[in-house]
Amino acid sequence: MRTMIQEINEEKEVTVSGWIHRIKKLKAVVFVILKDRTGYIQLAMDPNTFGHLKLETVISATGTVVSGANKYGQFEIQVKSLSVLSEVTEDLPIKINGKTLDIGLDTMLNNRVLSLRHEQESAIFKIQAVISQSFKSFLITRDFTEIHSPKLVKEGAEGGSNVFSLDYFGDVAYLAQSPQFYKQMMVISGLERVFEVGSVFRAESHSTVRHLNEYVSMDLEMGFIESEEELMILETELLRHIFSEITHRCSKELACLEIELPIIPEVIPTMRLDEATALLNRIHDKELEGDLDPESEILIYQHMFELTGSEFLFLTHYPKKKRPMYAMPDGNETRSFDLLFRGLEITTGGLRIHHYQQLVDSMIEKGLNPVQYESYLEAFKYGVPPHGGLAIGLERLTAKILNMENIRRTTLFPRDRNRLTP
Amino acid sequence: MRTMIQEINEEKEVTVSGWIHRIKKLKAVVFVILKDRTGYIQLAMDPNTFGHLKLETVISATGTVVSGANKYGQFEIQVKSLSVLSEVTEDLPIKINGKTLDIGLDTMLNNRVLSLRHEQESAIFKIQAVISQSFKSFLITRDFTEIHSPKLVKEGAEGGSNVFSLDYFGDVAYLAQSPQFYKQMMVISGLERVFEVGSVFRAESHSTVRHLNEYVSMDLEMGFIESEEELMILETELLRHIFSEITHRCSKELACLEIELPIIPEVIPTMRLDEATALLNRIHDKELEGDLDPESEILIYQHMFELTGSEFLFLTHYPKKKRPMYAMPDGNETRSFDLLFRGLEITTGGLRIHHYQQLVDSMIEKGLNPVQYESYLEAFKYGVPPHGGLAIGLERLTAKILNMENIRRTTLFPRDRNRLTP
Repeated sequence: MRTMIQEINEEKEVTVSGWIHRIKKLKAVVFVILKDRTGYIQLAMDPNTFGHLKLETVISATGTVVSGANKYGQFEIQVKSLSVLSEVTEDLPIKINGKTLDIGLDTMLNNRVLSLRHEQESAIFKIQAVISQSFKSFLITRDFTEIHSPKLVKEGAEGGSNVFSLDYFGDVAYLAQSPQFYKQMMVISGLERVFEVGSVFRAESHSTVRHLNEYVSMDLEMGFIESEEELMILETELLRHIFSEITHRCSKELACLEIELPIIPEVIPTMRLDEATALLNRIHDKELEGDLDPESEILIYQHMFELTGSEFLFLTHYPKKKRPMYAMPDGNETRSFDLLFRGLEITTGGLRIHHYQQLVDSMIEKGLNPVQYESYLEAFKYGVPPHGGLAIGLERLTAKILNMENIRRTTLFPRDRNRLTP
Repeated sequence: MRTMIQEINEEKEVTVSGWIHRIKKLKAVVFVILKDRTGYIQLAMDPNTFGHLKLETVISATGTVVSGANKYGQFEIQVKSLSVLSEVTEDLPIKINGKTLDIGLDTMLNNRVLSLRHEQESAIFKIQAVISQSFKSFLITRDFTEIHSPKLVKEGAEGGSNVFSLDYFGDVAYLAQSPQFYKQMMVISGLERVFEVGSVFRAESHSTVRHLNEYVSMDLEMGFIESEEELMILETELLRHIFSEITHRCSKELACLEIELPIIPEVIPTMRLDEATALLNRIHDKELEGDLDPESEILIYQHMFELTGSEFLFLTHYPKKKRPMYAMPDGNETRSFDLLFRGLEITTGGLRIHHYQQLVDSMIEKGLNPVQYESYLEAFKYGVPPHGGLAIGLERLTAKILNMENIRRTTLFPRDRNRLTP
C-alpha cells in the first residue's frame, strides 16, 4: 500500500512511489530525493540496493521512517527494499531539478511533459484548474446551468476569415470560434442562465504572445438583465470568488511561484472607450480611433493604476463598427465592455440584440447575409428575453494572475501556426 | 426588481418576468400562466391590460400576490401593469405547452430552442449538467487535476479512418478522437491523476442511435495503480456519487421525467468477455468472437440482470486485436474492461503500456508507424508510472439514466452526417 509523501508524519514502515528527483552518492550511503505529486522526501539507502539508477527513474521503495530534519522535511526513509517501476532509457534533454527551469520557451514546450516535472511549471496548471472550477462553482450558486455546445458548426459565430473549415461528409463545417450563438439560444430556450468552459478555435495566422489558434473560453450568458452594468458587477464578484478560491486552495503553488494575488477593488474603475482614446491621444500623442492597440491597453492601465490603484479596468461604449452584429447598439455605440487586467483584455461582454428584425438589420448593416444565420435567427422569432453575457479567456486570465507575458506558458499544449505537436 | 416565481410565498406586490405558457380568456378576466426558469404562476388580469398577446411572448408583470390554490401553486398574481419585453413574430411551429411534447425526434431537434421550453426537455439537460459537475467534484476529492488538452492534433489517438482532418496553415491537422495521449502524458508529467470533460470527434459515417460525430467525453487517467480492478472500483464509487448528486439536486427534474434512478450494487458484477461470448453463443445461437454486437450487449445485460438484479456489468479481458495499441496486454488478452449500463457500453477503460519499447512493439504489431507517434512516444523515455484510465460518454450515460433510446435526445445540438444545424 503506497503512502503519499506529504502524509508521512510518524516513525513506521512505509512504501513510497515516485520519481528520483536528486541523487547524492556517498561511500556508505546513497541519498535519493524522491518526489510524488504531493511532495519530496529524502531516502537513505545502501549503494548496492540503489544500483545505477538515473534521475527521473520511477521507483517504489519500502523502508522505515525516521525523524530528522533535512532540506526536504522532518523525516527520512531508511530504505530496505526497492523496485524499479520504469527505467529512464535516454539522457534527459533538459535539466529539471534546479531551483528554476532555465530553458527557453520553445525548449520548454517541445519538452512539455518533462518540463512539467518542475514544480513551478506544474503549479501553473494546478492553479489554472482551480480557476476554471471556481468559475463554474460560482455560477452554479447563481443558478446557471452548464451546457456543452457543438464545436462543429455550419454558422460561424463571428464571421470574418479567421475560421477553420473542414470537409464534413461532403459538406463544409467550421470549427466554432465561440459558443456565442448557442449560449444565446440556450438563454432563449428558457434555461435563462448558462455557462460553458470549452475549446474554441481561431484561424488567425499572426503569432503574438496573446493569441493562440485554440484556447479555452469561459463563457456565460444570462437573460432578463437590463444593463451591461449587471454583467460587470457579476464579473467583479466572479473574479473575487476565483481569487479567493486560489488563495485558499493553492497556497503552496502561489508560494512556489512567488506570486501574490492582486486585490480586486469593491468597484472596478470604468472608463468610456472614447475617453480612453482621447486621453491617450492627448498624453501619449497617439492617433487612436474607436479601439485600443495592445500598447495603448498597457498605457491606459498604467495611467489608471496610478490614479486608482486598481489593476482592473472596464472600458465601455465600444463603437458599433468594432463590435459584432449581435451587440446591442446605442446610437453609434454599443452597450458592451472589455475588461483589462494588468493591461491585457481578458473579457469582452455586453448586452445583445433580442429583437428579430433589429438583428436582421444589424447583420445587413455589417454586410452579412441573414440566410447564412438561419438557425440562429430562427430562435429570435418566439419570445426572447433581454440578455447579455461575457467570455473570459482561461489562458489569458491565468497568465496575468501569474505575471507571465506569453500565454503559451499557461497552455498545456499551445497551438499556433508553427506548433501542432506535442 | 424581478422576483423569481418559486420564491413567491406571501401576499405582497411583486414583479415577475417570463414566457406566457398558457392563456385562458374569460369575459372579465384573462388568466395567464407565466413561466420562468424556476416554475409557473397564474396571473389574473384585465383583458385590456392583456391585449392580444400570443403564447411564448416574453413579458414583465407587476401586481399583488394573493393566496389561493390553483393548478400551478398556492398563489396568484393580480396584475396591475404589464410590459412586453419581446413579441412572438411568427406562429409557433410546434405545440410546447402540453403535458408531453408529442413530436418526432427530427422535429424536436430542428426546433431545439423551442422544444427545450418544454419542462421535460430542459430537465434532461439540467440533470446532464449535474452529471458532468459531479464527475468533476468526485475526482477533485480524490486529488485529480482538471486538464484542457488540445482538440487540434497531429497524432491521432486511436488510428483508423474515422478522423476529421483539416488544413492548418498548409499542414494537416486532425480533430482529437479522444484526449487519450494527452491524459497519459499528463500522468507521466507528474500530475499523476488527471481528468478532462471535453468535446471529441469521430468521423464515423454510419448513423445509429448510439453514435454521434461529436460528443462529450468524461476522461480520467491515474498513475501508480497495479490493476484494472482499481479503476473498476473507482468507477463504481464515481457512479454512486453521480447518482447521489442527481438524487439530491434534481428531484424536481426526476419527477417531471418520471424517472427512478437504478441502484448501483456494492460490487458491480464482472464477467470475462470470452465467458460472455460463450454464453451467448450457447443460449442465443450467436457466432460471436472477441467482441459483442449491440444486440448481444443487451442480451448479456438481460441475462445478468435476471441473475443478479444489477443493471451494470463489467466485461473484462478483451482480446488484444479488439483494443488499441496502448492497452496493456496479458497474453492474447488485455487488462481492459467495458462497463455496460442497461445493455449499452458507457465506458471503456484499462491499464496502459508504460514501457517505451513495449509500446513501440505494440504499435508495429498493430501495423502502425511509431514515427507518426513521435511526441507521444517521447514521453515514455523518462520514467513512466504504471497507469490506466477510463472514459465515460456523457450523452450515453445521460440517455441510459433517463431510459432514452437515442442519444440525440440527450445532446443539445447533435452532430451526425445529416445534421450540422442548428
